[in-house]
Amino acid sequence: MGLAWLVDPAAGRLHTDYRRPVPKQAYDCRRNLQGLGHNSGDGDLTHKCRFPGSGSNFTKIQAQRENIWTGLTDFEAASVLSWLFERSDLNLATINDARGWDNTMSELIELMVPNKTDSLKFINHGGKAPPRYAHVVINHRATAQPYFADILVGPLPIVNQTTQWLPLEYPYTRKAQGRVRNVNPDEHLIRNKWLLNISTSVADITLDLWNATALGLANDSISILGIDPLSQENDRVTRWDQFWNNPIGEFDDASLLPLGLYVHSDVTGRDPTKWKVLGWLYNNVFYPTTDSFRNAFYSSGFEKLKANIDGVWAHTDQRGKVLPHDRSYPPVSVAPSGSRFAVDVKQKWVEWMDFTFYIGFSRDTGIALHDIRYKGQRILYELGLQEALAHYAGNDPVQSMTAYLDTYSGFGPHAFGLVKGYDCPAYATYLNSTFYQNETTHTHTHSICLFEYDADNFMQRHSSYTDVSVTKNVYFTVRSVSTVGNYDYMFSYSFYMDGSIRVDVRASGYIQSAYYAHNEDFGYQIHDALSGSMHDHVLNIKADFDILGLNNTIQLTHQVPTTQTFAWSNQTRNTMKLKYSHIENENESRFNWDANSATQVKVINMDEMTPYGEYRGYRILPSAGTIHLTVENSTNLRNAAQWANYDIQVTRHHDTEPRSAHSKNSQDVEDPPINFDEFFNGENLTQQDLVVWLNLGMHHIPHTGDLPNTVFTTAHSGVVFMPLNYLLSDPSRETVNMARVNYEHGNVSSVVTFGQEDNQYA
Amino acid sequence: MGLAWLVDPAAGRLHTDYRRPVPKQAYDCRRNLQGLGHNSGDGDLTHKCRFPGSGSNFTKIQAQRENIWTGLTDFEAASVLSWLFERSDLNLATINDARGWDNTMSELIELMVPNKTDSLKFINHGGKAPPRYAHVVINHRATAQPYFADILVGPLPIVNQTTQWLPLEYPYTRKAQGRVRNVNPDEHLIRNKWLLNISTSVADITLDLWNATALGLANDSISILGIDPLSQENDRVTRWDQFWNNPIGEFDDASLLPLGLYVHSDVTGRDPTKWKVLGWLYNNVFYPTTDSFRNAFYSSGFEKLKANIDGVWAHTDQRGKVLPHDRSYPPVSVAPSGSRFAVDVKQKWVEWMDFTFYIGFSRDTGIALHDIRYKGQRILYELGLQEALAHYAGNDPVQSMTAYLDTYSGFGPHAFGLVKGYDCPAYATYLNSTFYQNETTHTHTHSICLFEYDADNFMQRHSSYTDVSVTKNVYFTVRSVSTVGNYDYMFSYSFYMDGSIRVDVRASGYIQSAYYAHNEDFGYQIHDALSGSMHDHVLNIKADFDILGLNNTIQLTHQVPTTQTFAWSNQTRNTMKLKYSHIENENESRFNWDANSATQVKVINMDEMTPYGEYRGYRILPSAGTIHLTVENSTNLRNAAQWANYDIQVTRHHDTEPRSAHSKNSQDVEDPPINFDEFFNGENLTQQDLVVWLNLGMHHIPHTGDLPNTVFTTAHSGVVFMPLNYLLSDPSRETVNMARVNYEHGNVSSVVTFGQEDNQYA
Repeated sequence: MGLAWLVDPAAGRLHTDYRRPVPKQAYDCRRNLQGLGHNSGDGDLTHKCRFPGSGSNFTKIQAQRENIWTGLTDFEAASVLSWLFERSDLNLATINDARGWDNTMSELIELMVPNKTDSLKFINHGGKAPPRYAHVVINHRATAQPYFADILVGPLPIVNQTTQWLPLEYPYTRKAQGRVRNVNPDEHLIRNKWLLNISTSVADITLDLWNATALGLANDSISILGIDPLSQENDRVTRWDQFWNNPIGEFDDASLLPLGLYVHSDVTGRDPTKWKVLGWLYNNVFYPTTDSFRNAFYSSGFEKLKANIDGVWAHTDQRGKVLPHDRSYPPVSVAPSGSRFAVDVKQKWVEWMDFTFYIGFSRDTGIALHDIRYKGQRILYELGLQEALAHYAGNDPVQSMTAYLDTYSGFGPHAFGLVKGYDCPAYATYLNSTFYQNETTHTHTHSICLFEYDADNFMQRHSSYTDVSVTKNVYFTVRSVSTVGNYDYMFSYSFYMDGSIRVDVRASGYIQSAYYAHNEDFGYQIHDALSGSMHDHVLNIKADFDILGLNNTIQLTHQVPTTQTFAWSNQTRNTMKLKYSHIENENESRFNWDANSATQVKVINMDEMTPYGEYRGYRILPSAGTIHLTVENSTNLRNAAQWANYDIQVTRHHDTEPRSAHSKNSQDVEDPPINFDEFFNGENLTQQDLVVWLNLGMHHIPHTGDLPNTVFTTAHSGVVFMPLNYLLSDPSRETVNMARVNYEHGNVSSVVTFGQEDNQYA
Repeated sequence: MGLAWLVDPAAGRLHTDYRRPVPKQAYDCRRNLQGLGHNSGDGDLTHKCRFPGSGSNFTKIQAQRENIWTGLTDFEAASVLSWLFERSDLNLATINDARGWDNTMSELIELMVPNKTDSLKFINHGGKAPPRYAHVVINHRATAQPYFADILVGPLPIVNQTTQWLPLEYPYTRKAQGRVRNVNPDEHLIRNKWLLNISTSVADITLDLWNATALGLANDSISILGIDPLSQENDRVTRWDQFWNNPIGEFDDASLLPLGLYVHSDVTGRDPTKWKVLGWLYNNVFYPTTDSFRNAFYSSGFEKLKANIDGVWAHTDQRGKVLPHDRSYPPVSVAPSGSRFAVDVKQKWVEWMDFTFYIGFSRDTGIALHDIRYKGQRILYELGLQEALAHYAGNDPVQSMTAYLDTYSGFGPHAFGLVKGYDCPAYATYLNSTFYQNETTHTHTHSICLFEYDADNFMQRHSSYTDVSVTKNVYFTVRSVSTVGNYDYMFSYSFYMDGSIRVDVRASGYIQSAYYAHNEDFGYQIHDALSGSMHDHVLNIKADFDILGLNNTIQLTHQVPTTQTFAWSNQTRNTMKLKYSHIENENESRFNWDANSATQVKVINMDEMTPYGEYRGYRILPSAGTIHLTVENSTNLRNAAQWANYDIQVTRHHDTEPRSAHSKNSQDVEDPPINFDEFFNGENLTQQDLVVWLNLGMHHIPHTGDLPNTVFTTAHSGVVFMPLNYLLSDPSRETVNMARVNYEHGNVSSVVTFGQEDNQYA
């Protein structure tokens, strides 16, 4: 994402079902929490603007247990907010009243995800639900050293005598009372004054180059914006910004319009009078002052480069001759019998075939799945995104110094309503999501979808002399799409009849491009003066496996060439064999997928064997390309994304290590709230409660085919968890969606359909 | 595949459309070519039993040109056969009359694929079609040194004065007049006498062990069969065979019932009196003679192992409790507007959107695509399977010495009719395929399908403040499924709106298992006495690229970490950059996919640049896991499958190197007809006509989830070719299957659907 391209999730549309009329209130489900005291008696307001999901033909059930992983009620959130405003020690100002030096509640109030240790008592043994706490982030700006503070408020409900707030420190590796500096507290000032002052100071030059100025006026046709995170080197906070053309039409294509003029400024501290311009870059020449840049600009022989200008090339609409038959409607998936799954909409608990799970949702990471069970046994305690990195590189400072950590913006608030029939099948069941922002709870309707789909390929098949047996591959998917700035990330969690679970990330949207000048080593030239700036997307997924209990081991099965003799031959043979090993401890638990896929990675339970003596388990493997970060020891990131350096990383579960990243890690890259490296301290990993941290992602060297938008072909990464010696046979034999066609003398003699419903469409 | 498990493609059913009645003759479309002389006046018989394809609503068009890559007419095949029988020098006997020492026409008559050099004049410049020759394989058994002979007969039509036959040698690296020994000429004798004699000689033991005998009687309940290829070491031809339980029901699950008793015999030469038993293996103990085995067997303390016995566990039918909702019909794809593509059924020429191509079909490799054009420009001259290897390993000799090369059996004859709604959507268009076997032309109806499908994910998407734009991902697939013995291979060639082409192989069917005894280093134990014998599937694909002409280059773009300074900073930065290289010659043109996907592999044309100075090209990359062979310098294969050793191999195109493998390579593994290594002789590969040989495949260590059949999760391998700086922007912008939803104040203000047909299903 890019700062400039971030859509305010609370503004604009919240809902995209254009085919079916939906009541007005679905679009605009905001509840200002101010004024809703805990004694207001207003109860849970959610029912007033939540919808149960549009695919209303699914079976409604009641979850066995409360979903303990998501959601404060409006009443809870309002009472927490109200209680906090009464705490004079916090010195809070309301958003409406706040100025640059006020503490605000801009950031977060949401349910604190309970510790696994506490949850297990509840979900395994039916004990009491863990106490509810609100996780709150306060934006402390009434100080020369501004900071964000993670705190807990609770236990809920608020009762003035017993409720307290306390610094939230235990889930973070940095022990600093849950505080992390706010490296950009005066962003508003910088955007609206500091950068405009700079652009105004060179208005003569921008007019000359592009016939445009950035003066802070409504008709400005250029903008100035730059790196994220801000540079934090040598105890200085500095920024590099670039001039960009503004889109001229209705398209969101600003990220394709760089102009190739860069300015460096030091914005350390909160006194703007001490901020200063440190230099300019144009055509790969650095000028240490504005004067020296201006002198060069007006000297003879100064080369003026061409601009990137908005146009149809940058727009996503249909264009070109319509292809043969394309106006006819293409194949489409339909659900003749309606939905074949059950949902508890309130608890977001889902049952499909032999799988059940809860859907969680949070500001930082959007959807996550909890307590995933298969045939009644938990496979995963938690499965979900941790962080998404987009690390750029270039010969210009804006590209070189950009490494977005997207949970700073949050995947939750940017999970907008889905477009039916495009993002998900029209027949899908759609659920809503809720997030907190600026004292207000917002609901995005239809931002999560659930659907079954028939893959275009079979699950099983065999032909013989006398018959052919073939089974459909019908799977179930939970999906959301988050648009974080220029990129749209689609997250799909899919479940299969063979017991497999798959996580897929696909990306589309506008690339963040670079101005093309002397940077052929950092991307292809893709338009007039445009480089498809190279970058790595790396997305960290937490997979907290519990295979038949908490105590698991990572077993590796290596397939290796061998030269050896056998009992039946005295000649050596060149052949292959298996070697087994397991990950002993956290000193050896960070590794990559093996060359030639030669090593199987499995989560097994050594205390649970098949009758044949094999450890029961699940195998983990990539199902679509995955990567780890190319950059080694990134100057931009320092210690802020150490999770990105390997494909697979395994740790022993601790309540103190619930997340691999903190959404504010970008604020102090040298000493971030969570330094993932610190999770690895040699602990034994044999028959322990294990967490597997997996990286999805893709290298992206944008080419002309990424204009105007990135398409699916390579922007897809996935991982699959599949039963391996987990059951005694393939569970897909349970489905009736198979056929056996019998033959005699070349004729069909009979067809067995196993009681499946006859289908008018097939 | 396994010898025992090979379905005779000419026997049994040919057609699997059980829902729609099809005229009787569709099932049994065999035309005995004997007696059809070239003067019979019978013309082309094909119309009498071919069907134009069942999805009859596609647009019928005429190909611009004749399909020169597939199919003799019945008249041509019959006249060639008749002409050959008149050649006394060939000394041919008819199949019906032939005995073990007669030369026969059992193997092949099909169209000789023309040389690319000759074809180009025709397809590029509208010149005359290349002359037609029949490719014939004669099974010479009337000799002590039996051999298969590839010959050409032609030019067609047969005219006695000018027609000649000549040895076919030029496409093979071994210069031996197109001859390769028949290493198993007396297979019938071995199966029906030699092995039965052996099993009869130990009938007392098999009765004792399994209460069963193999005496060649109808009620035999065990079989004896073994390795492929036969061992060819030290100038001896030897075989290892194993006893197997026969299935007791109607399922084809023999490959799951090994019994763990192995016998070694020398079957060198054609004099059965000189064949001899070389020893026995049981429970990993080798006995050099039958007597020594018997003595041990009857001595005290001899451990008798348990048998693998057929049962429900080995059957593919539905079993177990039916899951919730599973009797309701699952989602299914439908085609509301019918087919949106055009086909010339006779020429097998297909047009979908901006793609056109011809479908070829051959005995050895089944379907292949030819002259694939995109927007009128050829991308690939040829795309198709070359060979499929299944290399096993084990501590027993049958597993250890098995390395099936499946074109020996042929993918063409084993491409049976597809099951509508299961193998392909019910609305697909189905085409027929034809192959020669034993003087007879056979047609398998509905063995190729063509269909469009809507992926469950979008092709493009972007959300902004004011709108969301999203495009469907509708693709087009050509598919066939070949059941070669125990395995069913699904081949899919798919085309996408972004200009990409994808090749996917999926496998299902019964695993070939091993008896479980002392072989934990070669597979998991998965049933009573059963090991899921480890094996590698490697499938070689030929991709003869012609990017904007014949002269192409392989460019590699490496993404590498770097530490460097920039014009705008005097401090070094840890970041990343690109390095470019290209494959100079055939000394460096065999390589593997890079670790961490760090290298892009592209076929570019250095004479064709974008206006921005980038080479136009296509990128090649894996889209689902691919492998090369684990075994190094395989003792089983020697020089017979040297194509299996790397992921990617690039050669300069020669008419003399059309195939990477010969279907009879298994007959002489030391000196096979085609030794792929010999393609690599240092030739320059810069701006030359290039062929890229790619390996798909998967390691397979079967586990309990492979019982009864292998399912899709890991048995999938794919590669995609995608435009990279080939066009100036993403061509998927041409489709109308997109929507733009505009918002104002949180409400949908308008929806743009670009003229797409309104759809009742969406």
